[in-house]
Amino acid sequence: MRVIHSVRNLHSWRRKQELLHGPIGFVPTMGALHDGHLSLIHRARKRCRTVVVSVFVNPLQFGEAEDLGRYPRNFPADRRLCREAGVDLLFAPSLEEFYPSNFQTTVTVNRLTQRWEGESRPTHFQGVTTVVTKLFCLVRPHRAFFGQKDYQQFLVVKQLIHDLNWDLRLIRCPTVREFDGLAVSSRNRYLSADERVRAGLLSKALRQGSDAIRTGVRNVRTVQARMDEILDSDPDVHVEYLAICDSKNLEPLTKVRGTVVILGAVRVGNIRLIDNLLVRCPRSQG
Amino acid sequence: MRVIHSVRNLHSWRRKQELLHGPIGFVPTMGALHDGHLSLIHRARKRCRTVVVSVFVNPLQFGEAEDLGRYPRNFPADRRLCREAGVDLLFAPSLEEFYPSNFQTTVTVNRLTQRWEGESRPTHFQGVTTVVTKLFCLVRPHRAFFGQKDYQQFLVVKQLIHDLNWDLRLIRCPTVREFDGLAVSSRNRYLSADERVRAGLLSKALRQGSDAIRTGVRNVRTVQARMDEILDSDPDVHVEYLAICDSKNLEPLTKVRGTVVILGAVRVGNIRLIDNLLVRCPRSQG
Repeated sequence: MRVIHSVRNLHSWRRKQELLHGPIGFVPTMGALHDGHLSLIHRARKRCRTVVVSVFVNPLQFGEAEDLGRYPRNFPADRRLCREAGVDLLFAPSLEEFYPSNFQTTVTVNRLTQRWEGESRPTHFQGVTTVVTKLFCLVRPHRAFFGQKDYQQFLVVKQLIHDLNWDLRLIRCPTVREFDGLAVSSRNRYLSADERVRAGLLSKALRQGSDAIRTGVRNVRTVQARMDEILDSDPDVHVEYLAICDSKNLEPLTKVRGTVVILGAVRVGNIRLIDNLLVRCPRSQG
Repeated sequence: MRVIHSVRNLHSWRRKQELLHGPIGFVPTMGALHDGHLSLIHRARKRCRTVVVSVFVNPLQFGEAEDLGRYPRNFPADRRLCREAGVDLLFAPSLEEFYPSNFQTTVTVNRLTQRWEGESRPTHFQGVTTVVTKLFCLVRPHRAFFGQKDYQQFLVVKQLIHDLNWDLRLIRCPTVREFDGLAVSSRNRYLSADERVRAGLLSKALRQGSDAIRTGVRNVRTVQARMDEILDSDPDVHVEYLAICDSKNLEPLTKVRGTVVILGAVRVGNIRLIDNLLVRCPRSQG
């Protein structure tokens, strides 16, 4: 496995790749790699000749009041995990080279970023789309692997790829979960034992909603009530949003139809958690 | 010469190019090709194995009150000129495919776009950087050829390439001029005979300023006065801006030093004209 820290070296590595056949698969990360990232890397490894992972904690996607400063960093462990997973290239640029002082470009996906995470974190997606564009320019992958856990992010990046005409396939990979259903996340490590139990309620509520839809409930308010019941059971779980949406444009629905996504964000103590489930509802029921 | 009108066909053309050696040179245009464009194409032809020209009148870079509707279009003539100039690929996408109804991404260079053209045309550069990013994603050139005539645009695209980490060299090509010094432009054809004479005053003023600097004048106000004298001689030439700036960041200077650019924009009748001259002043004089 090769490790590259500079843009110039990445450029020359990428130029050499042009002469080789076979696709480049790319997994962008902020490091602190966990089972969720590893599952993306394994998928890339299975499907691509060359696998590139980037590790870069992107300050642009953190709000001012957010946890940039204490976001977990452990490059030696990340490097070891990547090597063990058969990664070909680990790209870990320095903050100074990636965003030099005269850096002044932003890439914005406008409509899809307004709701949900975009409302809670107004500058977040602009930070994501800017860093992803830079990384795509550098790595020029044929396939990029993103987790379903950040479903809105997945859709935003899909829109970005489509709008900017990247010749690149975006692969959505299933959310990896703990024994009780909690979605794996770098931020889970900050949960106390009590909070850890509470955090499990989000995925439980989502499953409750998904089950209701699968068994034929089509009224969104009814589904919503069943999910609220679970989350309201613990006053220390603060719901930021919990919504049943069109799976393509994330507009909230009043009646369940087609493929929907149930999106949720809660706060437990100081920790903000998000999760979602995609539910395809059979046409015959209604 | 091959002509491609669709994004999908361009993607597959570009994928095949990966297997060939040698650089791809790219000249993006809005069509209505004139001697200025041809000089860019000739330079690309000399320096690159494969030359791609795009013809696309980009609505995003026109303001609401601007001349999008009457911007000159003549695809058969453009195609003939490209073929004669030895272009390998002419890319002319349709408006509908390039900006489909759900298009929602913008690319913005923030600081460099505030002054001068950005002040006169507030949405212009965002339109330019968005279309240029899309075209770079599609063509993935090794070298892109831009004219010095749009000097601020050249700097903005340079910043864009740097900020987004494109592995791409931007080549600035000298302004092509008419017999009397008027910079060649698609909009010159709209000038009446009288206006045509007046339009020549802009380049005359710039040369006057440049000559003053070359002969040792270092006070910007003195240089400015000599230029104003020429433009004030005709009350039907309306100066929008005329400034002596740092050639890298376009900040206006009070004292001439290093390499400066004299930027000018005037209106003659309904036609807006821009031009500029780069002047390197010798260190010894001061």
